[in-house]
Amino acid sequence: MAELLTERSGRVAAARKLTRRAGRDDAGAFLAEGRQAVAEALTLAEADPSAVREVFATETAAAAHRDLLAGTAVPVRLVTEKAAGALSETVTPQGLLAVCALRDVPAERLAGSPPSLAVGLAGLADPGNAGTVLRTADACGAGAVVFGAGSADPYGGKAVRASAGSLFHLDVVRGAPLGPLIAGLRARGVTVLAADGGGETALDDAGTSGLLAGPVLWLFGNEARGVPPELAGAADARVRIPMRGRAESLNLAAAAAICLYATQLAQS
Amino acid sequence: MAELLTERSGRVAAARKLTRRAGRDDAGAFLAEGRQAVAEALTLAEADPSAVREVFATETAAAAHRDLLAGTAVPVRLVTEKAAGALSETVTPQGLLAVCALRDVPAERLAGSPPSLAVGLAGLADPGNAGTVLRTADACGAGAVVFGAGSADPYGGKAVRASAGSLFHLDVVRGAPLGPLIAGLRARGVTVLAADGGGETALDDAGTSGLLAGPVLWLFGNEARGVPPELAGAADARVRIPMRGRAESLNLAAAAAICLYATQLAQS
Repeated sequence: MAELLTERSGRVAAARKLTRRAGRDDAGAFLAEGRQAVAEALTLAEADPSAVREVFATETAAAAHRDLLAGTAVPVRLVTEKAAGALSETVTPQGLLAVCALRDVPAERLAGSPPSLAVGLAGLADPGNAGTVLRTADACGAGAVVFGAGSADPYGGKAVRASAGSLFHLDVVRGAPLGPLIAGLRARGVTVLAADGGGETALDDAGTSGLLAGPVLWLFGNEARGVPPELAGAADARVRIPMRGRAESLNLAAAAAICLYATQLAQS
Repeated sequence: MAELLTERSGRVAAARKLTRRAGRDDAGAFLAEGRQAVAEALTLAEADPSAVREVFATETAAAAHRDLLAGTAVPVRLVTEKAAGALSETVTPQGLLAVCALRDVPAERLAGSPPSLAVGLAGLADPGNAGTVLRTADACGAGAVVFGAGSADPYGGKAVRASAGSLFHLDVVRGAPLGPLIAGLRARGVTVLAADGGGETALDDAGTSGLLAGPVLWLFGNEARGVPPELAGAADARVRIPMRGRAESLNLAAAAAICLYATQLAQS
């Protein structure tokens, strides 16, 4: 019987640093918690062993997820409940976490071979929104999500949880200046659309006029301030979602869902 | 200069009970915090003085929102920062709260005169999702949102905040059994649609086949378990959102946004 690692062990202490952004960037790794995320991570590790460094599991979780952990080549470390709690960012720790390599790809890859749908986040602040947009982008077939400077970190606990595994399905670009990226993508024929409650183009018209048909980069901005004017001005169009009701605006992740689904429809 | 109410004053202590569901139901009131929510509440109070009972403001907030508070007939009570903090459910209290009457209407009103778009929540658990769905329903022109048994309370701090004022724009029905309501609405010609990742009708097909054109009630379920089978079975159709990507499912509020916007489009 292997000894359980406590929260004072070197491995757990090192992993705990991944609960903060600086720690993640230093180590080039992040924590994925819970069965769904760990399952996605281990699937990825089958093709790319460097994607997952180790898994921490309590005895209870190791037993409950035996099917998942039995076949993997990734080292599984048994930890105490307290150690699992120290690594968790949730109220009810699930006792199962994977230490995964950051999934960043360079912005040049996106510019060199643009997917039919990509998303750029310009100052999106809420980690839950960041994860939800990742999940929606994945569902709608996006190939990449770019987190511009000042945006929430997609590798934080809340964002990873909200992404529900989608973080492992698409390319993530972090910290790239969005201005040059927009210019580069437009030069390669990508239509750049800024979501903007005061935009001059209605989403329905964007669909019927063909703006959504080709490769598209959608820009979503900060929850309160929207897309910065200099970036919105560099887009092909500023697109609003027409609303017949009385709400002044939509939640950012809800607005993104509507825009991305409309694009999927137009491209299918 | 009026004396500031402290957190030990009877009024503040009574208002603090509204931070819990039992306290809200006992008092028939809830707290709306921040400028946007208080502004919506005070607008409502102009037509219906019973809608808002009192406003609490710190001296700083009273000065900052003088324009908002100057013209109202609602009593404004100055409170200490500590008292405002005790009433707040946010990390950074805004120093401005309104005590508002619960906005529940009886389910019979909805059944008697169905709006062109309504939403039923069957076990939706997350308060943030509840508020976001309210906001999206409002934006898309829904007339009512029904919170079935076991759903999050729309009057909790997080839900009110996520609704961004939309709680004041539409009818709220709480605790009504959804089964009889569905039957009653169908008998009056309302099309009842259950959002269901495994549904047999694709959302696009629902649009082209006219299912979204007449009055519609959308049912959304629990984040993990979906719409209960007995309710989904009572609907006219179980509708899935086709996804070309790899995500297994969408966030509930994102899925609701796509369904409600598609309905607005079909009805416009």
